[in-house]
Amino acid sequence: MFIAKVIGNVVATQKNEKFLGMKLLLIQPYISRDGKLQISGSSVVAVDSVGAGVGECVLFTQGSSARLTPTTKDAPVDAVIVGIVDAVEVEGKLLEKP
Amino acid sequence: MFIAKVIGNVVATQKNEKFLGMKLLLIQPYISRDGKLQISGSSVVAVDSVGAGVGECVLFTQGSSARLTPTTKDAPVDAVIVGIVDAVEVEGKLLEKP
Amino acid sequence: MFIAKVIGNVVATQKNEKFLGMKLLLIQPYISRDGKLQISGSSVVAVDSVGAGVGECVLFTQGSSARLTPTTKDAPVDAVIVGIVDAVEVEGKLLEKP
Amino acid sequence: MFIAKVIGNVVATQKNEKFLGMKLLLIQPYISRDGKLQISGSSVVAVDSVGAGVGECVLFTQGSSARLTPTTKDAPVDAVIVGIVDAVEVEGKLLEKP
Amino acid sequence: MFIAKVIGNVVATQKNEKFLGMKLLLIQPYISRDGKLQISGSSVVAVDSVGAGVGECVLFTQGSSARLTPTTKDAPVDAVIVGIVDAVEVEGKLLEKP
Repeated sequence: MFIAKVIGNVVATQKNEKFLGMKLLLIQPYISRDGKLQISGSSVVAVDSVGAGVGECVLFTQGSSARLTPTTKDAPVDAVIVGIVDAVEVEGKLLEKP
Repeated sequence: MFIAKVIGNVVATQKNEKFLGMKLLLIQPYISRDGKLQISGSSVVAVDSVGAGVGECVLFTQGSSARLTPTTKDAPVDAVIVGIVDAVEVEGKLLEKP
Repeated sequence: MFIAKVIGNVVATQKNEKFLGMKLLLIQPYISRDGKLQISGSSVVAVDSVGAGVGECVLFTQGSSARLTPTTKDAPVDAVIVGIVDAVEVEGKLLEKP
Repeated sequence: MFIAKVIGNVVATQKNEKFLGMKLLLIQPYISRDGKLQISGSSVVAVDSVGAGVGECVLFTQGSSARLTPTTKDAPVDAVIVGIVDAVEVEGKLLEKP
Repeated sequence: MFIAKVIGNVVATQKNEKFLGMKLLLIQPYISRDGKLQISGSSVVAVDSVGAGVGECVLFTQGSSARLTPTTKDAPVDAVIVGIVDAVEVEGKLLEKP
């Protein structure tokens, strides 16, 4: 899994029927580097499965495992938010969340 | 999933039989960066499952989940278009679609 | 899927028994950029499932979907050639094949 | 699999129910280069399945195989620690662990 | 699949029980570029399933397909050596093995 910040949302009306009712969030991955959480890599469109919202720091899962939540079961989904991050601790220090 | 623009199509006559009748589109991924949607990464050949066409902004799924649409079931496909993007909103602002 | 050119082949005598009789081709991925097909990324060893040969432009599939052809069923294979590319059209223009 | 150092941990209260009781560790991948183990790539959040702790050098698995441990069975998890590394030997020389 | 050279091995005593008896090899991927096999990308820890040893040039498989050998069946393994490379031929020329 990776840590990300929810930065926006995506609207699609014409779509695969399994996506009906799903909340599509745009998220920006962050990594730990030099004692800070820093932006890294491409923004991803992930399905929300835990009630996440814009501005929150989340944990997301990719690949076939993204279909293992009740929300995404059997759907053609390859990224899902599985948790809201309360704290990231590195070497005994809490990192500031993005 | 990632956001992409449909930039072309690919024709293959000699192919795996599961590809018969599939529309193969060439798509260019875009990411959100600095308040804009920007080209990022390699162009991908994706199967269309939602009636997408050249010039449209779409959402696509990769990996085993790409086989979870009615169009791509049990086919040796690793990328599929699952939606047509109407809007991408970042920090309360609609981004211009590519 | 990605577009690639078949640039060579790989011979392995001591191998997993599922590979017996498989043709292992070395392929170089190409992407569409600036109106041309350009080399991009690492060369890949892919199993041929459509009668492809050196010099041809092909379409290949990666990951678990690479096991979904008759040739690669249940084999420890993560890349397979699924089609021979006749034409790539971008913005109404046929791209020159590599 | 890749080699990594456990550098911290992640706390998430609101999460998918399969994550209950799982230990989420932040790990930094290392690769062998020029006779040393060197930091490479993004930090990853992995589930611990072997009793690993901060500061240890571990082996981790990604993708669908990350669900193949007793700890992660059927969970929406895409990275899991599967071993604690005792030694890495390259060309007859033990590499210093990070 | 990719071509790699076996450069070392990894020892882990505390590990997932499915790893018992598995040989963990450290391998360095190589790609074909400019008529040569050149180092590319990160070193990987792969399970040996064909009797490979340090110094040999091998073929390896990643992802869920890495579980499709008798050695790795149902194990949390995402990389496995599936063959020992005898020859790589590009444009009619045998490439020197690393």
